[in-house]
Amino acid sequence: MKYHLGLDVGGTNLAAGVVTERYEIISRKSVPSGAGRSLEEIVRAMADVSGAALTAVGLSEADVEYWGIGMPSYINPETGLLVHANCFGWRNVAILDALARHTKLPVVVENDANCAAYGEILAGAGKDYDNAVMLTLGTGVGGGIILNRRIYAGADGMGGELGHTKLVYNGRQCTCGQYGCMEAYCSARALAGMTREEMAAAPGRDSLLWEACGGVPEALTVRQIFDAWEQKDPLAEKMVDQYVEYLTAGMSTFITIFRPEIIILGGGVSNAGEAFLEKINRRLGAQTFAGMEIGVPRVIRAKLGNDAGIIGAAMLRPRKQQSIKKRK
Amino acid sequence: MKYHLGLDVGGTNLAAGVVTERYEIISRKSVPSGAGRSLEEIVRAMADVSGAALTAVGLSEADVEYWGIGMPSYINPETGLLVHANCFGWRNVAILDALARHTKLPVVVENDANCAAYGEILAGAGKDYDNAVMLTLGTGVGGGIILNRRIYAGADGMGGELGHTKLVYNGRQCTCGQYGCMEAYCSARALAGMTREEMAAAPGRDSLLWEACGGVPEALTVRQIFDAWEQKDPLAEKMVDQYVEYLTAGMSTFITIFRPEIIILGGGVSNAGEAFLEKINRRLGAQTFAGMEIGVPRVIRAKLGNDAGIIGAAMLRPRKQQSIKKRK
Repeated sequence: MKYHLGLDVGGTNLAAGVVTERYEIISRKSVPSGAGRSLEEIVRAMADVSGAALTAVGLSEADVEYWGIGMPSYINPETGLLVHANCFGWRNVAILDALARHTKLPVVVENDANCAAYGEILAGAGKDYDNAVMLTLGTGVGGGIILNRRIYAGADGMGGELGHTKLVYNGRQCTCGQYGCMEAYCSARALAGMTREEMAAAPGRDSLLWEACGGVPEALTVRQIFDAWEQKDPLAEKMVDQYVEYLTAGMSTFITIFRPEIIILGGGVSNAGEAFLEKINRRLGAQTFAGMEIGVPRVIRAKLGNDAGIIGAAMLRPRKQQSIKKRK
Repeated sequence: MKYHLGLDVGGTNLAAGVVTERYEIISRKSVPSGAGRSLEEIVRAMADVSGAALTAVGLSEADVEYWGIGMPSYINPETGLLVHANCFGWRNVAILDALARHTKLPVVVENDANCAAYGEILAGAGKDYDNAVMLTLGTGVGGGIILNRRIYAGADGMGGELGHTKLVYNGRQCTCGQYGCMEAYCSARALAGMTREEMAAAPGRDSLLWEACGGVPEALTVRQIFDAWEQKDPLAEKMVDQYVEYLTAGMSTFITIFRPEIIILGGGVSNAGEAFLEKINRRLGAQTFAGMEIGVPRVIRAKLGNDAGIIGAAMLRPRKQQSIKKRK
């Protein structure tokens, strides 16, 4: 039996797992990310938690071929540096060098949303499909493109950033600095933010949302918005309607380009329930170029939760990323 | 020497060519498309002009392996029908069956903008690159995606329609029926249309554009807009500034997804000159996610003009398209 070592690096946790050839996680370890610490400290924690996942099942580095890591951002192939990871405040950090000091294994770093999409294709919601687009609707909007069961991350490995495609020309400013990115309208943060604005602008306080958040809009959660929506609260309905319009418009661009067999939704928003998913599916065809004539793929929920990122990272292929070079 | 037969089907002309393995066109024939005629008549003209290109250099169907055709729209792999071709008013037409009655050759049909992109990659502006995005800015906006020197047209062959990605959420209605497509803002028609609106709304008639079009905004051409722009006419400057903003915002989405090595511009608007191209290149980085940090590809002009479509069609690979099937 061959084993694979995967690590999912997020702003909250570092989650490591040992994965079999059948995509089963036979060992997991997780520690808080400890954002705010130095690069060196975080990298040591990444190595420690990954090593602990191995030793917990009596394995060592000698039992795996490489160490796959999913994390925000991506490695610039020209500089070898990780471009930026907002959760740690990193810009152009030499993560590969830092990791090399803690392991003898070859290291493969890939964007975390790409790893999640890959995990879902290998072992989750996408396992019956070859071509998929996955959107992780959380604090941000992560995008993962799967073509012929492989991650597609652009010619230089720095693409596939679906959350930063333009959705609203000259629209709201995104965390990335650009204006009108899909993330600025379709992330959980955006939904909560736009709802709070609407509450602030509303004359009365008759929406269930006021009660749900205890009169403090800043405390409002996306879960509360969807709960109120299910109870047909007018303000929640207005916000969810609008959110589905933005989301399906954004999805339409990806369908028009990729015509994937399936669209997989992950992240907090994807837990809003079946009625929400059906609402998206009902609206998508009408929002998409030629959607009513040639059809659109179904939108389904991710199955693996946080495991997708671990499995996807563990199963990365070491050659691929390092071999991508720009032609001069 | 092996020969290839290609046909570029447009709303104006049917242009056939015999192409060598070195991508040289050794014979060309062109006839008016005769839009408005029946499917059967147009298909017969397609066969006649292609046959004429062969016989002009002493060849026959026996000397080529297949007949490559670039035309608007695409074949639906589930029905075998051409989905729609606005220039002929066709919806779901059995073009492959109709073509089969006029040739013994296997026929490969591909979207015309994809063929143009493929021609430019093989023999034109893109020949030193493996990964490119081409935009044909004419009456509409045609998109061609080249990944690893192959056409990428989505999982089912009906994607890659870059002109119908969303650029302006809930924006102007596009010819396709959707709202806010890139085509509705970045086609030559859109530029002329938006300029005419601006002229109609302007209080005076002091812009050079009024003189250029002889006082008849409906007669205004894109060439006249760019001529006035070069003479620093304020209205033309306003319109070209705005057009470049739309165009670079649209391009930014494709860069964020594909990170191509190069972006190739074709179609009428691409002839606006070097200053226009430089204006695009100057603006693109600032409009693109992480563009200032990791750079953006250069935008260059297509080289082959109408030949690109013929060469691209002639060099299509017969297996590829027909083999794409949806997994059930």
